[in-house]
Amino acid sequence: MEKIKVGVVGYGTIGKRIADAVILQPDMELVGVTAHSYNYRIDIAQEKGIPVFYLEEKNGLEKNCKLAGNLKALVNKCDVVVDCSPSPCGAENKAVYEELGVKAIFQGGEKSEVAQTSFVAQCNYEKSINKDYVRVVSCNTTGLSRSLKILDDLYGVTKVNATLIRRATDPGQVNKGPINAIVPTMELPSHHGPDVLTILPHIDVFTMAVVVPTTIMHMHNISAKVTKTPDLEEIKKKFKSTPRLRVVSAKEKITSTAHLAELGRDLGYSRGDMMDICLWEEGIAVKDNEVFFMQAVHQESDVIPENIDAIRAMMGMKDADMSMEITNTSLGLMNGKKKSKIQKTEVEPEKGLI
Amino acid sequence: MEKIKVGVVGYGTIGKRIADAVILQPDMELVGVTAHSYNYRIDIAQEKGIPVFYLEEKNGLEKNCKLAGNLKALVNKCDVVVDCSPSPCGAENKAVYEELGVKAIFQGGEKSEVAQTSFVAQCNYEKSINKDYVRVVSCNTTGLSRSLKILDDLYGVTKVNATLIRRATDPGQVNKGPINAIVPTMELPSHHGPDVLTILPHIDVFTMAVVVPTTIMHMHNISAKVTKTPDLEEIKKKFKSTPRLRVVSAKEKITSTAHLAELGRDLGYSRGDMMDICLWEEGIAVKDNEVFFMQAVHQESDVIPENIDAIRAMMGMKDADMSMEITNTSLGLMNGKKKSKIQKTEVEPEKGLI
Repeated sequence: MEKIKVGVVGYGTIGKRIADAVILQPDMELVGVTAHSYNYRIDIAQEKGIPVFYLEEKNGLEKNCKLAGNLKALVNKCDVVVDCSPSPCGAENKAVYEELGVKAIFQGGEKSEVAQTSFVAQCNYEKSINKDYVRVVSCNTTGLSRSLKILDDLYGVTKVNATLIRRATDPGQVNKGPINAIVPTMELPSHHGPDVLTILPHIDVFTMAVVVPTTIMHMHNISAKVTKTPDLEEIKKKFKSTPRLRVVSAKEKITSTAHLAELGRDLGYSRGDMMDICLWEEGIAVKDNEVFFMQAVHQESDVIPENIDAIRAMMGMKDADMSMEITNTSLGLMNGKKKSKIQKTEVEPEKGLI
Repeated sequence: MEKIKVGVVGYGTIGKRIADAVILQPDMELVGVTAHSYNYRIDIAQEKGIPVFYLEEKNGLEKNCKLAGNLKALVNKCDVVVDCSPSPCGAENKAVYEELGVKAIFQGGEKSEVAQTSFVAQCNYEKSINKDYVRVVSCNTTGLSRSLKILDDLYGVTKVNATLIRRATDPGQVNKGPINAIVPTMELPSHHGPDVLTILPHIDVFTMAVVVPTTIMHMHNISAKVTKTPDLEEIKKKFKSTPRLRVVSAKEKITSTAHLAELGRDLGYSRGDMMDICLWEEGIAVKDNEVFFMQAVHQESDVIPENIDAIRAMMGMKDADMSMEITNTSLGLMNGKKKSKIQKTEVEPEKGLI
């Protein structure tokens, strides 16, 4: 089988994770990544044997790194490029992808018009089959779409109100706040609600957002109006059995996003990530025709499996379930439960060691 | 070769890491761990096939867990027990280890009198050979001892002043502060200075400590008076080539403890830990007969390799370097540099996948 040749443009928070995830796919080959300037991540990429390409300028990269060529050289070798540049650089790079006739994925920071479709695998995989330009929506939109899709399939969702309690910035960012305030987002609805419409266009979603001093995860407090009488146990059961969702519980002593981060580390997930959207069992309720729930979204990683599935859709794989199964298995997303594993070292003790 | 049978008492921040590290050793066997009460970590231990024992009371553990016996049942099966209970429970458990005649390691939270020796592998491994009770000193004392030993070997250290900027609590703890203040420790010297004397008794160390709102790592700002004229380049070279120390640099865009945490994640370290003591290249200076340096200490993990080496010393391995080499190799601590690796998934794509 010919492997799908994938390039990753931008090697930051999302790019480095997608590059690792591509390497793990049995049907994909990582052609290389681009770097903007030198930092320790470039050393790690080189240790992993990942070819590093440069953008317009080398910016001194050549002093610390064996460069494999420029952006066009990378794109020319690829079937699909995953653009993880900070917005709006993705849209700016699109001219290169068009010129060279190479398919491209953009991230949720770009406007939806940059692509032919917006993508969440469990919601609308089939719309992106054989497309040339696809946008994987933001971490928050991905999280809202994954869980609302379940309720919509069960009962038909008509109206959603949600408050997003957003993390201030990513863990590695030390030059951004707030560090001691709650900052309301002065945009109503916040852009997240309308963005859900690119995935689930029939649901009326209104979102309000605040930013709080934490770097770990976002949280969403959601109420969803449904057309049938909702059944709490049925909802819990469905959430528990759906891949890429994970139901946790105060009974297990998981009562905060800090505990979810610790769970990701203890499970042995790459980088301690949490690609599943996490819902608290005690944080799900129904009243009349409304479903209430609280969920946590790991901003650095929940879109990683989506990007992998988008690659397969664009390359013509018709079976969404098969793509998701390959992705979930390779990334350890086992139906919301990952078997943790620890491997014995291969180092053999020298004879007569003790 | 008969493997060393190791039990871990207490399965919290340190205990869970030591249990994983023991599993990775070619010359050790993890007999089991004890748990105080049920939480998600117990599920993970069981998934890993680690036998779980209980303490005095089962505390409902039996409802969620197949229990392998009580504390005495565990101790009876071990050559060495590593006690990771919160202090002073370790000292209280000592009666059990004495009664059953089993060797035991205690952690740095316990008073030094609990054991025959205090231990940092690179400083005084030989003192613990064949001992029955050894105390691995705290994360901060371990960090101070590792780097000061280098300077002491080079130039002879006579006097050390240090300010410890301590993390408030561990990442998973959500019920402890401060979250918006600097809290000076009302104890001069702070207990860390005198504790270094249990490892390097000839060095006069005075420490002052403050607690700040972060969970990531401690930092130490240190000045050390030496008896010969110090050479900056020689010091940097020695720090760079010493295992369990890691010299990082602003040139690599590593300028904070947040970046060190990100580095640990990107390197693929278990749990994103950083078992090396990290020093900034730009944060090392000399003036007259004094050496100044800044280092960061990962409170959750720097003592893990020490516990492993202490086990071997107590079981009679005379060669400290050999023990450290086995430990470093198995835990990926390659001379301050770990080769990061990513392994292709073993999942085979089904035929005719696309």
